[in-house]
Amino acid sequence: MVVKLTVQYDGTGYCGWQVQPNGISVQQRLEEALFILTGEKISVTGSGRTDSGVHAAGQVASFAVENSTIPAENFSSALNGLLPPDIRVIKSEAAADNFNARFSAKRKTYVYRVYESPATLPLKDRYAVRVNLLDVNAMKAAAAYIVGEHDFKCFLAANSSVKDTVRTVYALEIAKNGGDITFTVCGNGFLYNMVRIIAGTLVAVGEGRLSAGDVKKIIDGGERSNAGRTMPARGLTLVSVEYD
Amino acid sequence: MVVKLTVQYDGTGYCGWQVQPNGISVQQRLEEALFILTGEKISVTGSGRTDSGVHAAGQVASFAVENSTIPAENFSSALNGLLPPDIRVIKSEAAADNFNARFSAKRKTYVYRVYESPATLPLKDRYAVRVNLLDVNAMKAAAAYIVGEHDFKCFLAANSSVKDTVRTVYALEIAKNGGDITFTVCGNGFLYNMVRIIAGTLVAVGEGRLSAGDVKKIIDGGERSNAGRTMPARGLTLVSVEYD
Repeated sequence: MVVKLTVQYDGTGYCGWQVQPNGISVQQRLEEALFILTGEKISVTGSGRTDSGVHAAGQVASFAVENSTIPAENFSSALNGLLPPDIRVIKSEAAADNFNARFSAKRKTYVYRVYESPATLPLKDRYAVRVNLLDVNAMKAAAAYIVGEHDFKCFLAANSSVKDTVRTVYALEIAKNGGDITFTVCGNGFLYNMVRIIAGTLVAVGEGRLSAGDVKKIIDGGERSNAGRTMPARGLTLVSVEYD
Repeated sequence: MVVKLTVQYDGTGYCGWQVQPNGISVQQRLEEALFILTGEKISVTGSGRTDSGVHAAGQVASFAVENSTIPAENFSSALNGLLPPDIRVIKSEAAADNFNARFSAKRKTYVYRVYESPATLPLKDRYAVRVNLLDVNAMKAAAAYIVGEHDFKCFLAANSSVKDTVRTVYALEIAKNGGDITFTVCGNGFLYNMVRIIAGTLVAVGEGRLSAGDVKKIIDGGERSNAGRTMPARGLTLVSVEYD
């Protein structure tokens, strides 16, 4: 049986989604809990890795189990009884035998959160990053250049060796509510650190250090060094993953 | 010189505002930082105690300093350099010599946050508490009975020995945004655990276990045991304190 999980986690205390030699990952905690439940060494596949400190409201994962008497929809509560409180399976369901959370994923949505404030605000700073006052209209103009199918090499972490850097961004919405600003980006896939670099580039536009037109040139030029900084992990949340 | 501080803190890791023998308090951290800055053993007065695990967006505190060369408005950044990241002084200013954060306070506003969900959600659960689906209109009808000057003995923690239990609630607003529900209450003062018991009573109404009319009877009767449960500390945030 193949089971699809929808998982929410506060990434603060984890080295990210994927099992790592140095640190506790979300995947490891799920696999440990599944071993206790089923007695099987089950490998859990996530829709993608999230980095150390990145959060997920709706990460999707899948696994195959050989001999379990637990109905697919009951894995959520069974796993939640074994998981630490900062990881929760919010849904479990039976999936097609060929379902794979990574390879079947069609679209992902991330949100990056910043807040305008002269001082760091402890009640916002766990899931967002402090910024100075930003020009939202300038950022919206810049965002329009990012939407679409582009070679996003400029937004790829400098140490990555990925070859195919063409991705499609379906939407990039900027919303302001009081001093809270969110960048919500939906695409068919994202390069390593891409959302955090997009956020850093938009913040540079919002601060007036780059213009909207500069962002078009940065994409066309394909040089990581011309884009904005990689914003901190804690501002990033994987919102949802869509499948056909 | 008397200095007024506006302080934000994530209460998760603290035994509350006030210095306690067993545990680290926010007041202690502030007094330690002030001692480093000024060399004086300064006592900091908060507008009121917040309990263990309760948060503050805008707690107000005051202290008198004898011989400091630091201008009042610079205490915020000086203190922030010495405080842990979950406590931040968001404003410091000179106050009148007779200003006292506790005795000069005229009104306080608290918010209690809950979220409707079948599962605990790690990204909401630090500052809010999970509930089942609630009837918001019934809760609004009940809230109308709480607004005004009343003897609120029914909402006083059972182990308290306070004598004068009359307080005025100026406003009690219930707002729903998706599954997030907030109870925002403004009053001239609050009894021990009063806001958390009001929240528990409103949740009981929202769940249909009490009617709005029952809440009027509970206030009139003055029996703690008839009111709702004391909701967990983590859902409560002291929003602001007002002075003349």
